[in-house]
Amino acid sequence: MKIGIGQINTRIGDFGNNIEKIRRTCEKLAREGAEFAVFPECSVSGNPLKDLVFYDKFVEAAQDALHSLAASLPIPAVVGCPRRCAGAVGYRNSAYWIESGGIREVYDKHLLPNYGALNDARNFDSGEDFCVVEFKGKKIGLTICEDIWTIPCISTAARYARMAKPMEYYASLNARGERRLDLLVNISASVFSTSNDSVRKRGGLLDEVSAKAGVPLVWCNLVGGSDDIIFAGGSAYVDSIKCVCKCLKKFEEDSLVVDTDAEKGYDGDAYDYQGIGDLRKALVLALRDFIQKCGLKRVLIGLSGGIDSALVAALAVEALGAENVIGVSMPSKISSAHSVADAKALAENLGIEFHIVPIADTVETVEETLSPLFSGKERDVTEENIQSRARGLILMAISNKFGALVLTTGNKSECSVGYCTLYGDTCGGFAPICDVYKTDVYKLCNYINTSAGREIIPQNTIDKPPSAELRPGQKDEDSLPPYDLFDAILRLHIDGFKSASEIIGVGYDAEVVKDVLKKVAGAEYKRRQYPIGPKVSPVAYSADRKIPVAIKRGIQ
Amino acid sequence: MKIGIGQINTRIGDFGNNIEKIRRTCEKLAREGAEFAVFPECSVSGNPLKDLVFYDKFVEAAQDALHSLAASLPIPAVVGCPRRCAGAVGYRNSAYWIESGGIREVYDKHLLPNYGALNDARNFDSGEDFCVVEFKGKKIGLTICEDIWTIPCISTAARYARMAKPMEYYASLNARGERRLDLLVNISASVFSTSNDSVRKRGGLLDEVSAKAGVPLVWCNLVGGSDDIIFAGGSAYVDSIKCVCKCLKKFEEDSLVVDTDAEKGYDGDAYDYQGIGDLRKALVLALRDFIQKCGLKRVLIGLSGGIDSALVAALAVEALGAENVIGVSMPSKISSAHSVADAKALAENLGIEFHIVPIADTVETVEETLSPLFSGKERDVTEENIQSRARGLILMAISNKFGALVLTTGNKSECSVGYCTLYGDTCGGFAPICDVYKTDVYKLCNYINTSAGREIIPQNTIDKPPSAELRPGQKDEDSLPPYDLFDAILRLHIDGFKSASEIIGVGYDAEVVKDVLKKVAGAEYKRRQYPIGPKVSPVAYSADRKIPVAIKRGIQ
Repeated sequence: MKIGIGQINTRIGDFGNNIEKIRRTCEKLAREGAEFAVFPECSVSGNPLKDLVFYDKFVEAAQDALHSLAASLPIPAVVGCPRRCAGAVGYRNSAYWIESGGIREVYDKHLLPNYGALNDARNFDSGEDFCVVEFKGKKIGLTICEDIWTIPCISTAARYARMAKPMEYYASLNARGERRLDLLVNISASVFSTSNDSVRKRGGLLDEVSAKAGVPLVWCNLVGGSDDIIFAGGSAYVDSIKCVCKCLKKFEEDSLVVDTDAEKGYDGDAYDYQGIGDLRKALVLALRDFIQKCGLKRVLIGLSGGIDSALVAALAVEALGAENVIGVSMPSKISSAHSVADAKALAENLGIEFHIVPIADTVETVEETLSPLFSGKERDVTEENIQSRARGLILMAISNKFGALVLTTGNKSECSVGYCTLYGDTCGGFAPICDVYKTDVYKLCNYINTSAGREIIPQNTIDKPPSAELRPGQKDEDSLPPYDLFDAILRLHIDGFKSASEIIGVGYDAEVVKDVLKKVAGAEYKRRQYPIGPKVSPVAYSADRKIPVAIKRGIQ
Repeated sequence: MKIGIGQINTRIGDFGNNIEKIRRTCEKLAREGAEFAVFPECSVSGNPLKDLVFYDKFVEAAQDALHSLAASLPIPAVVGCPRRCAGAVGYRNSAYWIESGGIREVYDKHLLPNYGALNDARNFDSGEDFCVVEFKGKKIGLTICEDIWTIPCISTAARYARMAKPMEYYASLNARGERRLDLLVNISASVFSTSNDSVRKRGGLLDEVSAKAGVPLVWCNLVGGSDDIIFAGGSAYVDSIKCVCKCLKKFEEDSLVVDTDAEKGYDGDAYDYQGIGDLRKALVLALRDFIQKCGLKRVLIGLSGGIDSALVAALAVEALGAENVIGVSMPSKISSAHSVADAKALAENLGIEFHIVPIADTVETVEETLSPLFSGKERDVTEENIQSRARGLILMAISNKFGALVLTTGNKSECSVGYCTLYGDTCGGFAPICDVYKTDVYKLCNYINTSAGREIIPQNTIDKPPSAELRPGQKDEDSLPPYDLFDAILRLHIDGFKSASEIIGVGYDAEVVKDVLKKVAGAEYKRRQYPIGPKVSPVAYSADRKIPVAIKRGIQ
């Protein structure tokens, strides 16, 4: 049997364009010989919808689009769309088998995730029935995303203890001795992080699911960014002899016709993990999709001459084209000579519009205005913040006047400890690297230069010691531990939910650990007002981590 | 039987103070004759814990506090604390019956809410067993909060379809003909909104629960603010003849001994809903608790002479005392003469520290700095935003220097449509009235003046047409519909999830509705960076509503 996999990038609420994309991809797959085609979870509506499903009219409009799509497909297809059940109060996240101009079968997602960045369980009710479609003499079982994620994650399994488990049902069909299932289809929207790519590995989740069901698996995963999460694509066909035979591209739209007969007996491994290269592609995709799905075009970046803003500018050029990126250097009296020079070199390397707007006069005027009120008080962090906020003010004014969205350039290490000024360098509509640890910022910059075969990020930007340049001679390492050590502690505390005593227990210096964790707890209020940025780590602040602010700190 | 109800205000993670408060209250109740005492949900740890429970060491510390508490109570007590089950992966939200210096019984919450502002289901696993404690010949059934919330809310019931329902179990005990239950206890942390007070009404949820179980109900509700939600207290004792006999105070700590024999046959109604008076108390509690639970003391407010900042200042004085509130007037060239005069009059009425810091020089310097870049461009909203952001910059500098938290003064109506400047008037650590519609802002101001018997909010502030004063002669009603109409549309769209066609369908002008809804959709990105503020309406932006940003707008 020949099955088409249509790995498309959808936009939430853009029903017309989503179904047009499904239709075109389906036609292409049909021309290439596909007998039916599979599309991602909620492919008609976009994903994740969150509380938009509580608007009846939104779901009705999605259903209208679904019915219009059904009338225009050349071959049968499995697509995703939310629905309201007749007579029921809540909504379902559903897979539709479309055939002969109409809807033949509906399957409702059973297992509704409520962890990490996902909370389907808030917005949908769980399905009650399973669905085996008979097509050309084959029996095809339908599932949606989380429905097959019951094997590796014990804590998830515990949460679903009382729910009907699709995998148990589908596995039981063939276990009864009859061949009552021939193929399992999973339409998916799986959240990317640098640690979850392994589901596609030999022996990973997809292999296990196929083995457990005793039949091949078609896994069609969504691709694209949606606010603070990324869907990586990388859809796959897994044969029953337990190996991933075919993978579609990651981080871009792709389509493929799989011939199930031809893949029988394949014993290779189509897995293609590329580490820092994947991370770069993920960040570019997230940024491009946020800007475009918001209906915007141009971005504006404050270039400090430092490595974070340099990385963000390089990613933005890759995502949006040099013509859509504006860089602004905003030197103060304290700024070193190399800040402007390095920013200018970067802008030239990238070929972007570049402006220099000094902040010295603004800072001086603000300080003069406040001098009667501040008389007799020592200079302190207030004056450092005034500089950062003067830059924020100027950058936002340029943004307003030129209609370009400000990108925030903070990384995960500095967000963790609040080493940033609220309404200063945190200004912006999107924060492309806010979930990237500083040590990975370095890796990405070196990777970008190496793969370009030339200096994109100026070498001096990479080599010089990081500094906020808010007081003379300031260096990050005056306030923070060396980044290798710092990031290792943060990974244990944020991604691993380890407390001070546990981190100290594995050998880290007690004073350093306590200081870092104290700063992490104290910066919660800043993160609450931080711009959206894409999750790439196991536990991202923007998408994942929910910690109350007004608490007695220090226990966690 | 005499039962003590200890309605206390807890702080998350402050185990030592929480158990000390439980111990002192328990001793008081014992002195007043209580045979056992009941405390709120998660009273040992504070509530809601969110992802803090994923830190093993946090839960261990809470358990240590629980065991230390158990050793020091004069009478048995029911308290709440998270726990990790031996051998299990996840956590439970549990009620403990403490007796004779140790733990006698444990009950795990079954129904874990995942709607509105609550997501217990993310952090806890559901309980498996029920718990009937035998004490002095009486049989007492334990439940936690949501466990009894299965009757009025159909959509909630649908979500819990596959879960064991405590109310069905407890009701079935007596239904079997034997008297196998004498009393139902519910330890609660119920989220306040102006619409949910009715659970305590005659015929409301508590009455129905008691009637269904066929026994009296002790409902001990948490009191206090926690970030963006409020627990109202108002704990109650409901007799089996179906009426709320006794209510504890709302919006403050309280304790009471109920004599179940004396209450038999009571047919009154202890319900005490006070509308706008309750709203005022709720806002004051939320503000006080946020500041104090963060370990802070003083607040700083930009006083525009308008009604929103006047209300926030009045609430702050009520919450924290006049000595902890600083007002700053920041007139521009455009500001009317009455802005400073009204702000000054307010500060005098409230007896707070007051400063005037003009922003004209800063605005002029920023505009000069940007003039080469902006040359040839028309003046537009950019210049309006520069004024607002100059105020934000100055206010944050004063905040840094004086160590006082900035309060954001925006109301729900303006947040809805983004009638505010990000990093300008949205600056702040807490937004006390961000979930209060503008029409309620007026009601609250009039109420404050009336109940004080004198002018607190200057009458001119109440009477003059609202204006952002960012361009000469500007009025809110140039950009927005009259507030009565505006708020009515917003309530339907935000609190009621109604779409344009439905709102137009009930008689509102199509153009106005479409314009308001378009602005609501377009302001989602601003709300993502808005400070925390207390939920008081059915659907608050900060606590409740989850809408993606990068979408095609207009369908909802």
